Amino acid sequence: MILTDLATRAYNHNWRLDPVVRSLLDTDFYKLLMLQLIWQRYPDVQVTFELINRSREVRLAEVIPEGELRAQLDHARTLRFTKKELIWLAGNTFYGRTQMFQPEFLAWLADFQLPEYELSVRDGQYVLRFPGPWTHTTLWEIPALSIINELRSRAALRGRGRFELDVLYARAKAKLWDKVERLRAIPDLVLSDFGTRRRHGFLWQAWCVQALKEGLGSRFIGTSNVLIAMEADLEAIGTNAHELPMVLAALANDDDGVREAPYRVLEDWRELYAGNLLIVLPDAFGTAAFLRNAPEWVADWTGFRPDSLPPVEGGEQIIRWWQSKGRDPREKLLIFSDGMDVDSIEATWRHFRGRVRMSFGWGTNLTNDFRGCASSPTTALDPISVVCKVVEANGRPAVKLSDNPSKATGDPREVERYLRIFGREGMVEKSVTV
Amino acid sequence: MILTDLATRAYNHNWRLDPVVRSLLDTDFYKLLMLQLIWQRYPDVQVTFELINRSREVRLAEVIPEGELRAQLDHARTLRFTKKELIWLAGNTFYGRTQMFQPEFLAWLADFQLPEYELSVRDGQYVLRFPGPWTHTTLWEIPALSIINELRSRAALRGRGRFELDVLYARAKAKLWDKVERLRAIPDLVLSDFGTRRRHGFLWQAWCVQALKEGLGSRFIGTSNVLIAMEADLEAIGTNAHELPMVLAALANDDDGVREAPYRVLEDWRELYAGNLLIVLPDAFGTAAFLRNAPEWVADWTGFRPDSLPPVEGGEQIIRWWQSKGRDPREKLLIFSDGMDVDSIEATWRHFRGRVRMSFGWGTNLTNDFRGCASSPTTALDPISVVCKVVEANGRPAVKLSDNPSKATGDPREVERYLRIFGREGMVEKSVTV
Repeated sequence: MILTDLATRAYNHNWRLDPVVRSLLDTDFYKLLMLQLIWQRYPDVQVTFELINRSREVRLAEVIPEGELRAQLDHARTLRFTKKELIWLAGNTFYGRTQMFQPEFLAWLADFQLPEYELSVRDGQYVLRFPGPWTHTTLWEIPALSIINELRSRAALRGRGRFELDVLYARAKAKLWDKVERLRAIPDLVLSDFGTRRRHGFLWQAWCVQALKEGLGSRFIGTSNVLIAMEADLEAIGTNAHELPMVLAALANDDDGVREAPYRVLEDWRELYAGNLLIVLPDAFGTAAFLRNAPEWVADWTGFRPDSLPPVEGGEQIIRWWQSKGRDPREKLLIFSDGMDVDSIEATWRHFRGRVRMSFGWGTNLTNDFRGCASSPTTALDPISVVCKVVEANGRPAVKLSDNPSKATGDPREVERYLRIFGREGMVEKSVTV
Repeated sequence: MILTDLATRAYNHNWRLDPVVRSLLDTDFYKLLMLQLIWQRYPDVQVTFELINRSREVRLAEVIPEGELRAQLDHARTLRFTKKELIWLAGNTFYGRTQMFQPEFLAWLADFQLPEYELSVRDGQYVLRFPGPWTHTTLWEIPALSIINELRSRAALRGRGRFELDVLYARAKAKLWDKVERLRAIPDLVLSDFGTRRRHGFLWQAWCVQALKEGLGSRFIGTSNVLIAMEADLEAIGTNAHELPMVLAALANDDDGVREAPYRVLEDWRELYAGNLLIVLPDAFGTAAFLRNAPEWVADWTGFRPDSLPPVEGGEQIIRWWQSKGRDPREKLLIFSDGMDVDSIEATWRHFRGRVRMSFGWGTNLTNDFRGCASSPTTALDPISVVCKVVEANGRPAVKLSDNPSKATGDPREVERYLRIFGREGMVEKSVTV
């Protein structure tokens, strides 16, 4: 006779909501590093983030019920940093450094709440905007994306039988483990999980992280997800993102100010952080322009994270630049994290082996690869290219060019202006799938 | 915060034993059909069954701790048919027939207990014997085999981490489901589970059966496992086995009696059973000899289960024989169940399609195929060829020849005598892996 666990059963059946986001720490580590900088230097800037679905063929508003989306966003707004979480942020060592976060900043975080959102539907897509103080809207990026992606996964799984789901997850596990076994063959691999924002779901990301921990041992250096880092006793990984140069450029009063913005970001950054956190993200307005105009001291930074050129091309460009500045690339670090999967990790690693230090941030293809796992062919589980970007700062339009015109965001006229300022040198059109 | 289910945890930690066999119904259906015949006609025959490990390279006594084996065998001896089980046997319809089991037989079953066993170790192998009344020792065959096989699986999994086990089962599920998807492409497939005796474990067999149910729908006609048939509301499948002709031949007083034994079995059988239960198992002492000497009425039976010739060869031989007797093979049934897997099922089905009715009994390669599923290469999870056979009846040696000399059992001198009686015609040596 099977004894039913009545308490569990009653609890499961009375869920009002199965939250996608259960903690404000369920975000990428770099958001907290950037937030401390924003809180310190730009407390009065108003910034609007907006959801941008680059996979237009997926009509999100027809896939995810609006009521569900609102319930999840509302739930995220009820979250606060808990005592345990703040104590951990205060007491943990990040990148070898204690007290990464200032006590005043943590005290301020204790009262933090995600601000209101604006949601409407246009042409089958959600128009989801987060206007407000930069110090608050910045933390919407990751939960907004994980909510959208997980609700889409849930919609794709709805109606499938218990057994079908069992097989689906079995296949996804087998598929990921095959990837892990291939990565295991790379002797000096350095890899971390960057898959929070486009994950299939939180529990699945946790499983994937466990797989990397078990399979790669010390070659797996940590996760960008702060909550999972805390729970699984892993290093929290991450530095900075495009929103910093995008906002500073938008705030600039003239073209020179726009041109200088990426370097002002680095100046701000190095006053707060050091060592392995001194990673340059060079492609907000094109890597070629960034390198051409960069001050000498940028070559002193620990490394670069090329984020939109093909990895070999992007890496070679940066290595040439280091060499032109008389630096030895073997002492420098390249972090590859743009749409990587096992093939491109292997190829990139083989290409640069011995010539530069390398680290890989594995994102969507780690935490959301269910392609071929369903019992009947479907694209509903394929990852989509959805982002949540700064669209304006203090009422002015914000722009991202990147090295790949498919990844450019912003008002078209403003994009043209930025292209005049930075030029188109070195840009490579490449379709974006994840 | 994670709320631990204390009751479950305490229960799990206090298990004295995780039983392999939890019910006397956890056996093959044909054992019960045969037992009714034995109980009715041969209540006084003494028969010894013995474990025979044909995979000699696997030294079972070095793999399975003797204490564990004894604990499981002892536990099986504590089992009785429960009221629910007896009521189900009495009330269920088997092969379209109600009251398959006589009330007196079921009343007798209510007091049934597995008899004592003899266990010792010789040259790294267990010598496991079950002497006693045939009416009792016959029911040891299946639990003895499932205990040996599941304890071997458990030994192979011992020391593996929780995560590694998760991946292993995920891979096994993905592997089985790939097989199911291939079988699904066979439009008029008729398939049943015959995998109890060599299963990886009971719960795994239950999963495999569920997979067939979900994946094949009505093409999956049932399971040989009586307990699973009852629990999952499936048809119990099975007819008879080699032990009947082997015992009757051993009891015969002269060579003529030995030669006639297989037909006496069929005469006994058809007095008790009918219809789809009239399946001939022709190969106890060689199919060619069986067909050559068979009385005319054998051609009236519903079908044959060739069990040791390659399927195409065995099937063709039987079809030729039906034709020589003026029977239309398209009205006859062939049941293929000897070491089948998807390749051989597909090939056999294609070969005979439209010429004969076919049914497949899928055994070891259904319920114990973990090859390639472990994270590191191992043979410890590969299935082995272990059987539990009649070795003597009323003190006389029992023999099986089969069509494959690798599957012959019995005292070598006695085997020679049987070969003189039946001849070697049509025998094909073929290595036995499962």
